[in-house]
Amino acid sequence: PEAKPAEEVKKVLTYVERAAQCTHPLSKRLFSIMQEKRTNLALSADVNTAAELIQMADSIGPYICVLKTHIDIIEDFSADLIQKLSSLAAKHNFIIFEDRKFADIGNTVKQQYGGGMYRISEWADIINAHAVPGPGIIQGLKEVGATKNRACLMLAQMSSKGTLAKDTYTAESVKMAEGNKDFVIGFICTEKLSSDPAMLHMTPGVQLSAGVDGLGQQYLTPQEVITNRESDVIIVGRGITQSANPMQAAKEYQEAGFLAYQALFN
Amino acid sequence: PEAKPAEEVKKVLTYVERAAQCTHPLSKRLFSIMQEKRTNLALSADVNTAAELIQMADSIGPYICVLKTHIDIIEDFSADLIQKLSSLAAKHNFIIFEDRKFADIGNTVKQQYGGGMYRISEWADIINAHAVPGPGIIQGLKEVGATKNRACLMLAQMSSKGTLAKDTYTAESVKMAEGNKDFVIGFICTEKLSSDPAMLHMTPGVQLSAGVDGLGQQYLTPQEVITNRESDVIIVGRGITQSANPMQAAKEYQEAGFLAYQALFN
Repeated sequence: PEAKPAEEVKKVLTYVERAAQCTHPLSKRLFSIMQEKRTNLALSADVNTAAELIQMADSIGPYICVLKTHIDIIEDFSADLIQKLSSLAAKHNFIIFEDRKFADIGNTVKQQYGGGMYRISEWADIINAHAVPGPGIIQGLKEVGATKNRACLMLAQMSSKGTLAKDTYTAESVKMAEGNKDFVIGFICTEKLSSDPAMLHMTPGVQLSAGVDGLGQQYLTPQEVITNRESDVIIVGRGITQSANPMQAAKEYQEAGFLAYQALFN
Repeated sequence: PEAKPAEEVKKVLTYVERAAQCTHPLSKRLFSIMQEKRTNLALSADVNTAAELIQMADSIGPYICVLKTHIDIIEDFSADLIQKLSSLAAKHNFIIFEDRKFADIGNTVKQQYGGGMYRISEWADIINAHAVPGPGIIQGLKEVGATKNRACLMLAQMSSKGTLAKDTYTAESVKMAEGNKDFVIGFICTEKLSSDPAMLHMTPGVQLSAGVDGLGQQYLTPQEVITNRESDVIIVGRGITQSANPMQAAKEYQEAGFLAYQALFN
């Protein structure tokens, strides 16, 4: 075949190649899990009891690279839940991402991350933060999480209708992330935002059929997210948790996401 | 004295006049408390144990119109704490504002507001929300809070350095609030944003001396906030909680804030 002009040859890197470029242990580990388990699926485990969360983590665990929690919607939270979740993360080799969406000034998020009933920094590998308070939020979270080798994702875009995370806001968020790569390992976003192969892109609002919910959530398909938006991880919630057969649904999302990844090299 | 030209006569309304213009019971009640207790001071009660929070609410309660909590930084949260806080709110006639800074899509904030360990909607008169997810966040919160006569403040500006809540972001937040006045009764802001006398303006980051903390928080004085920024409520945290004599400090902030309000009529 004829050689393409240089600007058209966009080299896509494999998970293995990207893991090799990561300096943060968590992004390195995540890319390695994605390769080993052949999955770019994150489960948004939005259930309301500890028993459901544990059951979901154990049954869906084999198919995911990341378990995303909202610990503050669990009615019967306890230290026992955390202990069981951590065991399941080890058993099934996934990373725990508490989707706290920290959004306060540095001095406050420090206390919310390290303290309170949830002591999020003690068990969540990854948390995320909104950029709206300015860089102090990252400084505050880093003071708690960095020594524990935790990491943060910057919310640079959202999947919801009418989001203000766009244009300048998104650009400022990316800058904030790129200035703190010792702690911020990537983005919550709806498309690829950084050319640094060590930076992760994780996209929420994914279902096998595009559409909307009644409260402004907008869905993209796995293929759209991986192929066209060039994101790395698909975050699926209700498409799995509200399926009649969540395990079967998880397998389908895993397959759809990984096939889309493999097709990048064709 | 000579009559001023019409455009220079900016009629400042009293708390009593503003209460009369409110259609939401919570804003009406808040303006009435402000008049009755002669205070526009909100205490940001950022302590880490239930005992400290109860002690603070009881000792500072007489001087404030609003007690602002971060319930998720309390290490030993329990239903008993909520019961005691509610009793103290009745005893001292203040409103409880949980500074949760909701910041997720509608379907998630519904669960975070109504469920989990904290069941915030059952005890917090007021909560607040970031505008970044778009209007779905207000719809979701409203589905939980409206029937309970709860209310929401929109985070339209922040006090922290480098905040992205400015310009278009602030303007869009104000629009979102003004389109939902049955539930959104005002703003967290650094200056007056709405000419509707029923809308409350509450300003964080207030200390008797201007300055900054080590994580980007920027302080304004009570007089600057009430006189020049034309806000209604001063939110004071560390200026009181970290004072050697918190009760004396609260009295000083109450007096400074109320004197600035009274001076608006001179």
